Amino acid sequence: MKKTLLLLSLVAAPALAGEGKWTPQQVLELDPAWLRAQGLQVSPKKLWDPKRGTGLLAGAVNVGGCSGAFIAASGLVITNHHCAFGVIQEHSTPQRDLITQGFLASKREDELPGKGSRVQVPRSFTDVTKTVLAAVPADADDITRYKAIERKQKELVAECEKRPATRCQVATFDGGVNYTLVDAVELTDVRLVYAPPRAVGEYGGEEDNWMWPRHTGDFAILRAYTAPDGTSAPYSDKNVPYKAEFFFPLATQGVKPNDFVMVLGYPGMTYRALLAEEMAERQSRLYPRMRDVFGEAIRILEAEGEKDPAGKIATASQLKGLHNVYKNSGGQLAGLKRGHIVEKQREAEAAVAVWAKKAGAKWQPALDARAALLVEQSAIAKSFEREFLLAASSRLARGPALAVVVSRLAAERAKPDLERRPEYMEREHVRIKDRLEREQKNLFLPAERQLLLAFVRRAQALGAGERIAAVDKHFGKTFSEKDVLAKIDAMYAGTKVLTLDERMKMATESVGQLEARKDPLLAFGLDLAKEQAALDEVKDKRQGAALRLRPEWRKAVLAHAGKPVAPDANSTLRVSFAKVQGYAPRDGAIYTPQTTLSGMLAKHTGEEPFDVPEKVAKVAEAKRFGAWQDKKLKDIPVNFLSDADTTGGNSGSPTVNGKGQLVGVNFDRVWENVANDFGYNPDVARNVNVDVRYILWMLDQVEDADALLRELGVRKGPPVAGETR
Amino acid sequence: MKKTLLLLSLVAAPALAGEGKWTPQQVLELDPAWLRAQGLQVSPKKLWDPKRGTGLLAGAVNVGGCSGAFIAASGLVITNHHCAFGVIQEHSTPQRDLITQGFLASKREDELPGKGSRVQVPRSFTDVTKTVLAAVPADADDITRYKAIERKQKELVAECEKRPATRCQVATFDGGVNYTLVDAVELTDVRLVYAPPRAVGEYGGEEDNWMWPRHTGDFAILRAYTAPDGTSAPYSDKNVPYKAEFFFPLATQGVKPNDFVMVLGYPGMTYRALLAEEMAERQSRLYPRMRDVFGEAIRILEAEGEKDPAGKIATASQLKGLHNVYKNSGGQLAGLKRGHIVEKQREAEAAVAVWAKKAGAKWQPALDARAALLVEQSAIAKSFEREFLLAASSRLARGPALAVVVSRLAAERAKPDLERRPEYMEREHVRIKDRLEREQKNLFLPAERQLLLAFVRRAQALGAGERIAAVDKHFGKTFSEKDVLAKIDAMYAGTKVLTLDERMKMATESVGQLEARKDPLLAFGLDLAKEQAALDEVKDKRQGAALRLRPEWRKAVLAHAGKPVAPDANSTLRVSFAKVQGYAPRDGAIYTPQTTLSGMLAKHTGEEPFDVPEKVAKVAEAKRFGAWQDKKLKDIPVNFLSDADTTGGNSGSPTVNGKGQLVGVNFDRVWENVANDFGYNPDVARNVNVDVRYILWMLDQVEDADALLRELGVRKGPPVAGETR
Repeated sequence: MKKTLLLLSLVAAPALAGEGKWTPQQVLELDPAWLRAQGLQVSPKKLWDPKRGTGLLAGAVNVGGCSGAFIAASGLVITNHHCAFGVIQEHSTPQRDLITQGFLASKREDELPGKGSRVQVPRSFTDVTKTVLAAVPADADDITRYKAIERKQKELVAECEKRPATRCQVATFDGGVNYTLVDAVELTDVRLVYAPPRAVGEYGGEEDNWMWPRHTGDFAILRAYTAPDGTSAPYSDKNVPYKAEFFFPLATQGVKPNDFVMVLGYPGMTYRALLAEEMAERQSRLYPRMRDVFGEAIRILEAEGEKDPAGKIATASQLKGLHNVYKNSGGQLAGLKRGHIVEKQREAEAAVAVWAKKAGAKWQPALDARAALLVEQSAIAKSFEREFLLAASSRLARGPALAVVVSRLAAERAKPDLERRPEYMEREHVRIKDRLEREQKNLFLPAERQLLLAFVRRAQALGAGERIAAVDKHFGKTFSEKDVLAKIDAMYAGTKVLTLDERMKMATESVGQLEARKDPLLAFGLDLAKEQAALDEVKDKRQGAALRLRPEWRKAVLAHAGKPVAPDANSTLRVSFAKVQGYAPRDGAIYTPQTTLSGMLAKHTGEEPFDVPEKVAKVAEAKRFGAWQDKKLKDIPVNFLSDADTTGGNSGSPTVNGKGQLVGVNFDRVWENVANDFGYNPDVARNVNVDVRYILWMLDQVEDADALLRELGVRKGPPVAGETR
Repeated sequence: MKKTLLLLSLVAAPALAGEGKWTPQQVLELDPAWLRAQGLQVSPKKLWDPKRGTGLLAGAVNVGGCSGAFIAASGLVITNHHCAFGVIQEHSTPQRDLITQGFLASKREDELPGKGSRVQVPRSFTDVTKTVLAAVPADADDITRYKAIERKQKELVAECEKRPATRCQVATFDGGVNYTLVDAVELTDVRLVYAPPRAVGEYGGEEDNWMWPRHTGDFAILRAYTAPDGTSAPYSDKNVPYKAEFFFPLATQGVKPNDFVMVLGYPGMTYRALLAEEMAERQSRLYPRMRDVFGEAIRILEAEGEKDPAGKIATASQLKGLHNVYKNSGGQLAGLKRGHIVEKQREAEAAVAVWAKKAGAKWQPALDARAALLVEQSAIAKSFEREFLLAASSRLARGPALAVVVSRLAAERAKPDLERRPEYMEREHVRIKDRLEREQKNLFLPAERQLLLAFVRRAQALGAGERIAAVDKHFGKTFSEKDVLAKIDAMYAGTKVLTLDERMKMATESVGQLEARKDPLLAFGLDLAKEQAALDEVKDKRQGAALRLRPEWRKAVLAHAGKPVAPDANSTLRVSFAKVQGYAPRDGAIYTPQTTLSGMLAKHTGEEPFDVPEKVAKVAEAKRFGAWQDKKLKDIPVNFLSDADTTGGNSGSPTVNGKGQLVGVNFDRVWENVANDFGYNPDVARNVNVDVRYILWMLDQVEDADALLRELGVRKGPPVAGETR
């Protein structure tokens, strides 16, 4: 990919200003004059130095699956409140409720270490395409191909992670056109410095999620620490703040409409390289079925939660997750339709095909690959319902889901580490056990019962060719509510999967030991796990085919474009160039790009999710704006929109101006922009950011966070003891 | 009122451009230069000729509680689809479903007569204040005062209605400062000429009700007929079209943002003359209790309807009504808060009080009256809960509500007509019987059972001083779900109130006959009716006090204003001067004042309430706009907003430009503007209109309504036989 593109570099501007999650290397392939015209004031080379394999972009860090950014040389990291929620929760007690009250470390020693908190700072990017492809035997069939590539990726990661405190990843670009080894330092002593009250950090809650206008203070400040010698080290009171080479100082003047901004971070996954038919399949089948199945689960959890306050608490977390994917799938459907995304992809594809045909033999393999991908696609569609249900089961009743996890863990543990499925490798065990433990608080039997009943009913309704054998075996082949409920009740009465100690023990046992337990729910889980494992093999084979075919087609697409094309997101560092601007969500309505403190007060009802904390309301109502008022709005700007190209994983992304100063923290996309994962629609492609002036106002006028503001260079005065400036 | 104001006339402009539902007489008291500056192009004297007591404003007519307007000399009347629904429904059969398909009379003879359709054309307005007040005996107590005034009003109406085909009303202005006898011709042969498909006329349904952006074609066209001699007559095939002296020709060029418009019509009731404390009482008690009680009823009806498709149909109409009042009360609360309406009224009142005190003895009676009104108010508040429940019962379970109607009808029938309560007088009997008959289709026993259970539970929870004796007697004093349900079941098992024939017979019987039936539900109704009648007497006494006190205070308020003040709405003819404009519903959002056909298509889901009929979609998708495209929007404008001062009763109001041409038909207010009933908030005071170009586009491009378009002077060509131009 890189070679082809380098030939075209220094001339090309992307088709649409905001479109493209560019890799650090690609930034140097874009026309510097175009970047300057957009509003970039630093040299592109300052953003990324290809020789060193780092640059200002590396000030954006990975914070446990979210994005974040250094905002001071002294290791201060800003990210989203929802990304730092784990550490806030860890230190919360009924006596000292940090979730509700928020937290401010008034001095260094008060900062709160987080058990699972991790920050990954990118160190280098190495093209390993040749190495990876060389691992594939000649004439390999698809499953062999897949296994060989996976194995090589694991080996490269293992080799890379021999360095201490290192986290590595072999990222696949453009469906296999390019493989890059990403090497990052993992800092494991990360402490909480500041968190706003939850009612600020989650203002609007589920109701405003994916929505605009928004008034959410979704930010928190952490600090990374290292051993005194600067190397990564676990928590110790001897540790010192991490010295960040690259960071984004706070832009105290903020942003205004039409300003240029860059959003940096680690977007997770997008689907723009799919063929139009593959997109159409998701549109016609996947998302509607998600609405159907998860919508039913939401109704069940809500109805059962209504009957019992304890149930309401227990199901809250699962409900939040389900609501999120339910709303998301609705947004995907609406956006695919509104943006005519499949139709546009079909046209774009047709144009490439016409061009490739004209070019003669050279691109025939690309055309053949596309045809073969279409054949694959239609084969996959046939087993969709069964596969969807098998996969969805992990999001439905917790009991079977947990039984499946311990079962698969046992089966995979029997293999050498390098032969395990990546998600069950040794390096993931801590995370898996965390999850097995955390789930305890989500259990609520009446909801379990109804969720499992609904799952069984759906499974028993599947066609003859796509039965789920585990369901047939444990619940019979035809649905009878009475019978199934009786079997469910017997299963839950006889199981120990829902007992924390027992479950954690199960997580260490072999398949034989698990089977010997004769635990009825576990037995169901063991059988489900076997079917899932078999399905995983089928999927690996499909992946092998895709890895053989898709790069061929994508090479033609990239060559036809004749200018840089940003690859699909894959959790690696990217940057998007954007402008602050509003949009027209629908006929008759215009959304302006900024919201204000007054708007937040106007939404206040005194009840969740619109309950402005008293200490915030007091200052806001008195209009004590300090130095942070926007002149035009005559108010504190709370959130703003820009047309950056983001997706999940961009949570906590720094939004910076042309000088590389932080103007905001990205935390969401608007609902109309969810289908952005399939294609960029400039009319509605908007991401939602916390305005830096709201952050500064909170720290200054509400919290009087003196030491922190001095450290950020914002509040003046003589330095205090132990202060880093 | 008139005298005081005439002294100030020809100089005054109202405080806010859009504010004020002006009476025809007041239009002449406003500064003509101000009216011209607003955009009025015809002389105010053309709007209203005080000598004749009529004028162009009288082109706006009352269509069965709605407003409407003549749009041609040949008796064509435009109003809302929802106002003409009765006649559309009357002629709909499964074989010829006019509700779904809509209707167009291709020639005069095809027009469909409507049983209950009536159009009232104003004929004269006479000040009868002196006559009314002279009827009150010296030293009358409050109940005597009330009865005397009511009696005199009835006598004036009876005298006035001696003229054939006449409908009269004595309207009270400013709480009793002025009484006006309104004399109208009632045309009773009114036929349906055109109705769009319901999916156009109700596009957006409940979901979009009170909302913007809106895409509803809420219009229909009727024609009024008279005997060949021009007098009002019941339906006859000898009848001829009514010759309208005043009418509003269609403005084929439509409107654009910032254009001047007038909204004419018959607004029902507003509360702006209430004291701040009286408003506060509604805010703190009435609307929250409405949300509470009617919200519960909605949940019950929806839950029961879900269980049975027949129940869903039966409860639909009641649910629609409840949703409307539920949403309305929410809007009142939100708007009162947002507009700081009570606070503003308190300030305005204080200013009048300060001024009145300074003026010395002259206004002391006004200050005393205000103080006395406040005392009355706090006394009324004490019995609020009981009175609210007694009144609400007519909106809850249909069985008791119907039993109450026949019981009260019987009790009132025993009195001479002039002594009956106005709503049970002879002239209302046809309407009451219509209602008793129509309710049959709304009955659904499972919902009845739960609604009555909820009502009894609330009644049994009332305090000792405010018991509902009928509930205590029939259901006991303390709540037990089992007992109450058993009693309800026995009541419904033994009643004939829900049998149509029997109920219609009951409507003709005396109280003695009803009692002799020993019907358990009727027995409950008879007791409830007695309590309601007693409460009505209490309310009459309060009204008597208000009629004594409020005019005193209002006279001071009007004198203090020193310029015309539009009185509260009272179902008499009014005009509001306005501008086409959007608004900012909340922080971060702006609503533009026009919506389009494309926006309607974008909302289309294929399911109610967003199901664009195929014949409309076909033309819209092909962008066959004819001559009706808005140049700037490059689309057909569907609805528009203006800042006119409207309320319930303005449904179907003509919205006309400065030349007196029809530019739209008013059909709703936006949700943020519901509290407009208490005070005009210029930021959000917006009414919703169907754009005349959407009407023209429907008739021309979709329906090809040739004869109708020719008659409206819009489509050219030689006249056809029987056509009126």
